[in-house]
Amino acid sequence: MTVVRQDVDRAAGRIAPHVRRTPLLQAESHLVLKLESTQHSGSFKARGAFNRILAAGETAALPAAGVIAASGGNHGLAVAYAARALGVRAEIFVPEVSAPVKVEGLRLLGAHVTQVGAIYSEAYEASRKRAAETGALEIHAYDQPDVAAGAGTVAAELLEQAEFDTVLVAVGGGGLVAGVVAAVDGRAGVVAVEPERIPTLHAALEAGGPVRVDVSGVAADALGASRIGQVAFDTVAARVSSVLVSDDAIVEARRALWREFRVAAEYAGAAALAALRSGAYVPAAGERVAVIVCGANTDPATLAG
Amino acid sequence: MTVVRQDVDRAAGRIAPHVRRTPLLQAESHLVLKLESTQHSGSFKARGAFNRILAAGETAALPAAGVIAASGGNHGLAVAYAARALGVRAEIFVPEVSAPVKVEGLRLLGAHVTQVGAIYSEAYEASRKRAAETGALEIHAYDQPDVAAGAGTVAAELLEQAEFDTVLVAVGGGGLVAGVVAAVDGRAGVVAVEPERIPTLHAALEAGGPVRVDVSGVAADALGASRIGQVAFDTVAARVSSVLVSDDAIVEARRALWREFRVAAEYAGAAALAALRSGAYVPAAGERVAVIVCGANTDPATLAG
Ligand SMILES: Cc1ncc(COP(=O)(O)O)c(C=O)c1O
Ligand SMILES: Cc1ncc(COP(=O)(O)O)c(C=O)c1O
Repeated sequence: MTVVRQDVDRAAGRIAPHVRRTPLLQAESHLVLKLESTQHSGSFKARGAFNRILAAGETAALPAAGVIAASGGNHGLAVAYAARALGVRAEIFVPEVSAPVKVEGLRLLGAHVTQVGAIYSEAYEASRKRAAETGALEIHAYDQPDVAAGAGTVAAELLEQAEFDTVLVAVGGGGLVAGVVAAVDGRAGVVAVEPERIPTLHAALEAGGPVRVDVSGVAADALGASRIGQVAFDTVAARVSSVLVSDDAIVEARRALWREFRVAAEYAGAAALAALRSGAYVPAAGERVAVIVCGANTDPATLAG
Repeated sequence: MTVVRQDVDRAAGRIAPHVRRTPLLQAESHLVLKLESTQHSGSFKARGAFNRILAAGETAALPAAGVIAASGGNHGLAVAYAARALGVRAEIFVPEVSAPVKVEGLRLLGAHVTQVGAIYSEAYEASRKRAAETGALEIHAYDQPDVAAGAGTVAAELLEQAEFDTVLVAVGGGGLVAGVVAAVDGRAGVVAVEPERIPTLHAALEAGGPVRVDVSGVAADALGASRIGQVAFDTVAARVSSVLVSDDAIVEARRALWREFRVAAEYAGAAALAALRSGAYVPAAGERVAVIVCGANTDPATLAG
């Protein structure tokens, strides 16, 4: 199952009234930063959530039970935000250990929150069971074509805003990179950036298909999928280069975003820039690079640290 | 002594290689935010500093003693930044009470820092005396045409980036608003926004000329001039409307910038938006408003607070 440019174009048309066209910052003569960190709900995830709900609503009435997702992080916030904006009921399943401040954030957005299971996968399984009972529309964090196509609209915008040869994108479950590859559609190179400690795509490319990896490190709250999604693998396998960055490089890049630009980013949001600053990816002479700063759901007290 | 559009155009040409063209954020259908908070040195002040140095260098060689300024805040940082970028010596005078972290920040930028006097005006007088001895080029924080014209380039950019009817600008000594009025040159309305507790322009408009005001409140570190500059008064008196905002409104606007957009701003940088959010300025139906978010030199730990 792959995502193609036409899916992204359709997504862009659907979600345009609901998402921000996020700003571009010319950081250096050959480097632009796409400040998707200023998107509604604090990350690019709002794009996929809106697209999934709006696309489902085109073919049939949305179920009375509304939408359901499992995530204590950016995906959950995005689904809750989009559901509220569209007047749809949202249930969000999170593990029992979730920080109270995150649960509270979801409730403030009007979502019905269920805390269940010791780890994410248990909350996820519980959400699937619940969806089977209620008929709610499931919104996966990355492994659905509509979610990936929605995420890809960030790159469609970028293509309108700047000329670039290569775009650097952080990868967790791969919804974002799949959408970006579809949007760019050969008009620029795509570099997939992952933490060394969560190499979902890297390991899948080596193995020839999605495999389970260990998850740890500073960006695990957002990039911590334990395997790359099938949609992502099918869409990007032959069409990206994959690089790994250390946690130190991510920390350094996040600090630099604050110090040099007063741009707030969470660790996942700084991972793509880390590839450039650490030399994990070295552009050719004259190569114009775009970096997606994809999220800023972070405690600002730690930005300068 | 006034500033006119041509001064801004000349400034823009001079400083273009050295300053960032800062991004625009479409916040609502009729509201754009100019993210000047992402400028080098963390505020619009870099524009005036570069213009003053480069303009002086056009008519004569810069003095061997370099440049000199009095400021423990954004102006000092901007002068230190610009001087380093241009390979010019910088001396910055700050009051003895200045926070060690600010003094350290100036030294890290290569400036020679002198701590003298109990309050700003004493540091300023000491800097003038020193300049008379050494021949260093004085860079005033706001009351010089080249400084104001440099600041105005932010509005010249804005005119290229967006269509708007009105631009809201924070006022301290008035260099920024003078430059903005000159740049806009009647093509849009300019609303000057000041804290109730530092009404330099408001009081001057009432009195018919610059008068001394008391200075206090959350934005005093950046907007705390005790009277409006003469350049500013002469340039803007007949050409702006002036509104006042409470400290509470400034605090609320700064928090909203973080919560809704993950945009970092210092209190002064949020003052213009505060006028809109608090209703101190109410746009007409359909009026397109631009707000300059002019600085982000702040402790990020306080952004969400
Ligand atoms: C800020 C941020 N960046 C990147 C990602 C990775 O996205 P994906 O899982 O689609 O690869 C996520 C996922 O939650 C995220 O929140
Ligand atoms: C962030 C910020 N905003 C606004 C101002 C006000 O500028 P002016 O003194 O030119 O009115 C200053 C001055 O330092 C500032 O630092």
